[in-house]
Amino acid sequence: MRTIIECVPNVSEGRDTRSIEAITAAVRSTPGVRLLDVSSDASHNRSVLTFVGDAPAIRAGVSALFRAALERIDLRRHEGEHPRMGAVDVVPFIPVRGSSVDECVALSREAGAAIAKDFGVPVYLYEDSATSELRSNLAEIRKGQFEGFAEKMKDPRWAPDFGPAEPHPSAGVVAVGARDFLIAYNIDLATKDLAIADRIAKAIRHLSGGFRYVKAMGVELAERGIVQVSINMTNFKKTPLHRVFECVRSEAERHGVAIVGSEIVGLSPAEALYAAAEHYLRLEGFSAEQVLETKLLDE
Amino acid sequence: MRTIIECVPNVSEGRDTRSIEAITAAVRSTPGVRLLDVSSDASHNRSVLTFVGDAPAIRAGVSALFRAALERIDLRRHEGEHPRMGAVDVVPFIPVRGSSVDECVALSREAGAAIAKDFGVPVYLYEDSATSELRSNLAEIRKGQFEGFAEKMKDPRWAPDFGPAEPHPSAGVVAVGARDFLIAYNIDLATKDLAIADRIAKAIRHLSGGFRYVKAMGVELAERGIVQVSINMTNFKKTPLHRVFECVRSEAERHGVAIVGSEIVGLSPAEALYAAAEHYLRLEGFSAEQVLETKLLDE
Repeated sequence: MRTIIECVPNVSEGRDTRSIEAITAAVRSTPGVRLLDVSSDASHNRSVLTFVGDAPAIRAGVSALFRAALERIDLRRHEGEHPRMGAVDVVPFIPVRGSSVDECVALSREAGAAIAKDFGVPVYLYEDSATSELRSNLAEIRKGQFEGFAEKMKDPRWAPDFGPAEPHPSAGVVAVGARDFLIAYNIDLATKDLAIADRIAKAIRHLSGGFRYVKAMGVELAERGIVQVSINMTNFKKTPLHRVFECVRSEAERHGVAIVGSEIVGLSPAEALYAAAEHYLRLEGFSAEQVLETKLLDE
Repeated sequence: MRTIIECVPNVSEGRDTRSIEAITAAVRSTPGVRLLDVSSDASHNRSVLTFVGDAPAIRAGVSALFRAALERIDLRRHEGEHPRMGAVDVVPFIPVRGSSVDECVALSREAGAAIAKDFGVPVYLYEDSATSELRSNLAEIRKGQFEGFAEKMKDPRWAPDFGPAEPHPSAGVVAVGARDFLIAYNIDLATKDLAIADRIAKAIRHLSGGFRYVKAMGVELAERGIVQVSINMTNFKKTPLHRVFECVRSEAERHGVAIVGSEIVGLSPAEALYAAAEHYLRLEGFSAEQVLETKLLDE
């Protein structure tokens, strides 16, 4: 099976199209890397790149990204609505096919060490790569933002995992880490009552006793006159879509409310959809290798 | 979207590994063609190749196949359990991605004309490419087999669509045509009573009043002590898996019988599985373009 790791770096430039193009071109022209998506947000002044490849290609892509971003982004002159601490702010590695989170943790360490060495940027390992509980949460690391980091790093608890003890003058610091693929999944309910969506969100989310890999909240869709359970599935292999869907259905029924529909926002791995088909069709002995498109990818 | 047409030719050689290897090598080395599978059956003395590509690549692959097969197969010395009429017996074209049955019908006409011209083999267009009702059924065309074809072709109703009015001395004739992707799908029932599987097969199959694109029969799985509804889904887009599954479930329930599981035999396009996930999760606005693997194929 061909290895596919996804990398979704966030860079602190979402306005200057020439800079964005130069940064994306650096990634696109890295051998073995496929750039799948670039989305820039002007009010956030931030761009998110999505690219895939095997581990060596991803390492080279990240290096090319840093080189181009550091040439063009100076955080001393950066403003935007989204909190940020680095010119390249965060670099997540996600196993998609033929790779595990553990392999992506190893990759994040190698990439982190290389970033520190080649570019002099302090690196914090986060999420599944974190070296302490505190650092697993990106928001914790990012607190204080670029402007506060020189002060923050004086605290020995915030010594970086790789690189110098002070932020890079123009590029700040970066968080690098492995995480599972995140699926944004919404379920719409045939009611205007936000309290019901909230109660169901509470029932399914990990924080309040629900599924381990579910984050959820109730959202009002005023223009459609309905409410929604808005969900982040942080590990669709261990907490699959269909299990959450059936749980929401059962909880909604208890309130006399039907499910209008559901929605996958953005990208999903094929496997998440195969799992739902497998469940409902009670497929026995099914393997993704039986899917024609899988065979084509493996060629 | 990248065009993928599948071609699944059956050739009348399933014993001599050197000949089989020469024929598959000819296909494999055709630029733009990807050979996905070869399965040979010694008792049938027949091999089935599965390869994919866009229309020009498939045309070239078929031409390479004929050249190699005609050099190595002489039907005058061929015996095997499977009925056959040609060294290359049948060449179906199947739209998989970014192509329609109509485009595959056009491709079958071009390929058929080229086979007749380049190799002097009479060509019968069959299935969706058929020029008469009688010829849409491959079994009708094949009747009489290689040994009976010289006689059969004297009947003007059996004049070929392309090529000479007599069979090729060593290679016979060939059927070429477009058809939809066929999914072999079995549903297992928690009963030993074959009559129930037969009754359900009858309920779902086109022949006796069921779904238009379903062929089905009851089968006993003696070693497991259960029975099975064995199904050929001849157009999974118009008659989807989940609709047949739910119909079988409802019919089985009426006999007090549960579904043990189901099974896809061999290959399936990803779309057939996405459709089941879409149905049961009530997905709104879902597109295969949201699947990461689709993006990789489209690169």
